[in-house]
Amino acid sequence: MAQQIKQMVRLAKIQVDPAQLDSYNAALKLQMTTAVKLEPGVLTYYAVADKANPSQITILEIYADTAAYKLHIETPHFKKYKETVQHMVKSLELVDMDLIGAAVKPAG
Amino acid sequence: MAQQIKQMVRLAKIQVDPAQLDSYNAALKLQMTTAVKLEPGVLTYYAVADKANPSQITILEIYADTAAYKLHIETPHFKKYKETVQHMVKSLELVDMDLIGAAVKPAG
Repeated sequence: MAQQIKQMVRLAKIQVDPAQLDSYNAALKLQMTTAVKLEPGVLTYYAVADKANPSQITILEIYADTAAYKLHIETPHFKKYKETVQHMVKSLELVDMDLIGAAVKPAG
Repeated sequence: MAQQIKQMVRLAKIQVDPAQLDSYNAALKLQMTTAVKLEPGVLTYYAVADKANPSQITILEIYADTAAYKLHIETPHFKKYKETVQHMVKSLELVDMDLIGAAVKPAG
C-alpha cells in the first residue's frame, strides 16, 4: 500500500495528425514496450484510441514514483520517441491522477 | 491477435457527487474486484481520479468481447453497484475505444 501511494499515475491525452497516425502508433508502441522492458520503474502503459476518432489517443501511464519518471524522460528510447513524433502530435495534455483501484485478470 | 481485435475496450468518464466520493469509490472497487474474480470475460479495470478534482473519475475497462459485456451488466454485483451509486453519479460518459497497445511489468 505504501508502494502504491508513491506511484505516479497519469493520463496523457494526445491529438495526432490523422495523416501520420500509423507512424505515430508504431513509435508509441516501441516506446512503451522498450520502457517497460528496460526500466525497473516503468510499470504500466495502456494506449487507447477513440473508435469514432482514432487520432484522439489516451495513454494510462503508471511509474513506481516520480524519480522513476524523471529517469524515464532522460532515456535514449524516450528521447528518440519524442524526436520521432514531434511533427505528428498536434496537442498533448498531461493530467496527474491517483489510482482508485485496479482489477486485472491473471494471465493464462 | 484475433482475440485482441474482438476485445471491447472503453473509457467511462464519471463525475461523482464530491460529498459521496468515499462511498462511491468503495462501491466501485467492490464492483471491479468482484467482476474480474467471478466473470471469465471481464479482463481489466483501472480506475483513476483527477488529482486536482478527485470526483472526476476515469475507468479503463476491457472485456473479452461484447457478449462478455452484455453478460456483465446482468450480473447481481453489477446491478447492486448501479443501484448503490445511482444518486452518487452526477454524469456518466461512455466512450468506445480501440486498444493501440499495452505494456505491463510482470508481477513479482
